[in-house]
Amino acid sequence: MKFARLGEAGSEIPVVVDEGRYYDLRSVTSDVNGDFLASDPVDRTRAALDAGELPELADAEGLRIGAPIARPSAVICIGMNYAAHAAESGSEPPTIPILFLKTPNTVVGPNDAVTIPRGSEKTDWEVELGVVIGTRTAYLDSPEEADAHIAGYVLANDVSERTFQLEVSGGQWSKGKIAAGFNPTGPWLVPASEIDSTNLGLRSWVNGEPRQDSNTADLIFDVRTIVHHLSQYVTLEPGDLILTGTPQGVALSGKYPYLKPGDVVEVEIDGLGRQRQEFVAWAR
Amino acid sequence: MKFARLGEAGSEIPVVVDEGRYYDLRSVTSDVNGDFLASDPVDRTRAALDAGELPELADAEGLRIGAPIARPSAVICIGMNYAAHAAESGSEPPTIPILFLKTPNTVVGPNDAVTIPRGSEKTDWEVELGVVIGTRTAYLDSPEEADAHIAGYVLANDVSERTFQLEVSGGQWSKGKIAAGFNPTGPWLVPASEIDSTNLGLRSWVNGEPRQDSNTADLIFDVRTIVHHLSQYVTLEPGDLILTGTPQGVALSGKYPYLKPGDVVEVEIDGLGRQRQEFVAWAR
Repeated sequence: MKFARLGEAGSEIPVVVDEGRYYDLRSVTSDVNGDFLASDPVDRTRAALDAGELPELADAEGLRIGAPIARPSAVICIGMNYAAHAAESGSEPPTIPILFLKTPNTVVGPNDAVTIPRGSEKTDWEVELGVVIGTRTAYLDSPEEADAHIAGYVLANDVSERTFQLEVSGGQWSKGKIAAGFNPTGPWLVPASEIDSTNLGLRSWVNGEPRQDSNTADLIFDVRTIVHHLSQYVTLEPGDLILTGTPQGVALSGKYPYLKPGDVVEVEIDGLGRQRQEFVAWAR
Repeated sequence: MKFARLGEAGSEIPVVVDEGRYYDLRSVTSDVNGDFLASDPVDRTRAALDAGELPELADAEGLRIGAPIARPSAVICIGMNYAAHAAESGSEPPTIPILFLKTPNTVVGPNDAVTIPRGSEKTDWEVELGVVIGTRTAYLDSPEEADAHIAGYVLANDVSERTFQLEVSGGQWSKGKIAAGFNPTGPWLVPASEIDSTNLGLRSWVNGEPRQDSNTADLIFDVRTIVHHLSQYVTLEPGDLILTGTPQGVALSGKYPYLKPGDVVEVEIDGLGRQRQEFVAWAR
């Protein structure tokens, strides 16, 4: 079972994908949002499917794919969480998770075109495993307790502008992380029960050429450790999105050129699908 | 005219305060949110007042004061924006605005008790002028264009935990800025037409002893400059909150002790009201 949101931006409908078929989820929930994710989404959806209550969507393949979660209340990112990426960025591997935030309005569909910001010369890609929070939590006592608060996982591209992030930021990274469209998410939200987050291949390409190719087994801080750690500093809300960091192979390394108009970025994670974005020039 | 939200947390009602009297605003808007602020809130409210359509709230003084804006989609903060505060923090004054984010769920009422986070030894106060966005904007061409997108101003306390922010953060400040309750806001939202943001005294006290005492005339980057600058990096949404930075006189300076359970913080800004928070110990 996978959740998705299909339709034009701003008017997506909630959908469940089960055994390759698409079903309209609107009789169960108005959206794939925090309220839905906090109240047994998988069991309720399974019951509705088994009861034949969900109409099949015949035209699903022709619809735009939105982000598989409604706009979250927070997007929390972990920086430098793969040792080889920290090295290519000129940093030591961190000894404690590094947290920064993106604005929730960066979250867009997985295949939406991404605008290179006005004046940008260093727009970069970052394939990342995203964790979606199911139930509100703070001050977890152990990493194991995190499991009960994770609704599922998504694929995300933490698009970044390196001049904005590192050169005109006073050292605070968010300035290069929050341009419109800088967080393609999806295509699916896969329930936590169907994914082993500790062993997922993740990859990216630019114009068909491979860039990143790693595995979440190489995360310095794994998903449970991240959620436990974050919960000491912030109340995690249902529907919040946590991006767990990106592996080596981005343009910041100096090995590859930054993105220019017309470039196509693809990212994928095992079991979480694949994205394809064309990067386009800014125009008023 | 001032806008407020009164009632228990999570069920506040929108209110307008006019010539010292409180009126129920629910026939005009369900909340003081982005949709309301983007659509001529002052003119619509004035028309409803003049037509006698808004019932007076007789018991307003007895109600809890909530944050005067609904939960925003983003809380964007400017760091080190008073030269003397940069100096007391051990930094040079910035030459370009420094941006970081708080999570929107930190926004609470102006007089709500604030919990000192578990394990905190360095919880600190920061009185700040808050700017509330009226209409969506990105890529402004001049600071003067910012005026058309500012709905009004609020008083805020950008509560901060300095160990979390500076010592266990890898240098990214947000970790010390996002604990539950770390953004007391209000009591009022004052429309931009009624406030000169360039000359407002702002002050704080701990247990009645003065701490901060400055004026927004001392801002390194003024409100227009901030909104213009931010718009180059992020799409500002109706209802978003921008905190413009704090002046000298916080505990981080080393001149004053950090907050302990039982301490009372008060902050005020000319024309924007006054807050009073008791800081309390964390308990599960």
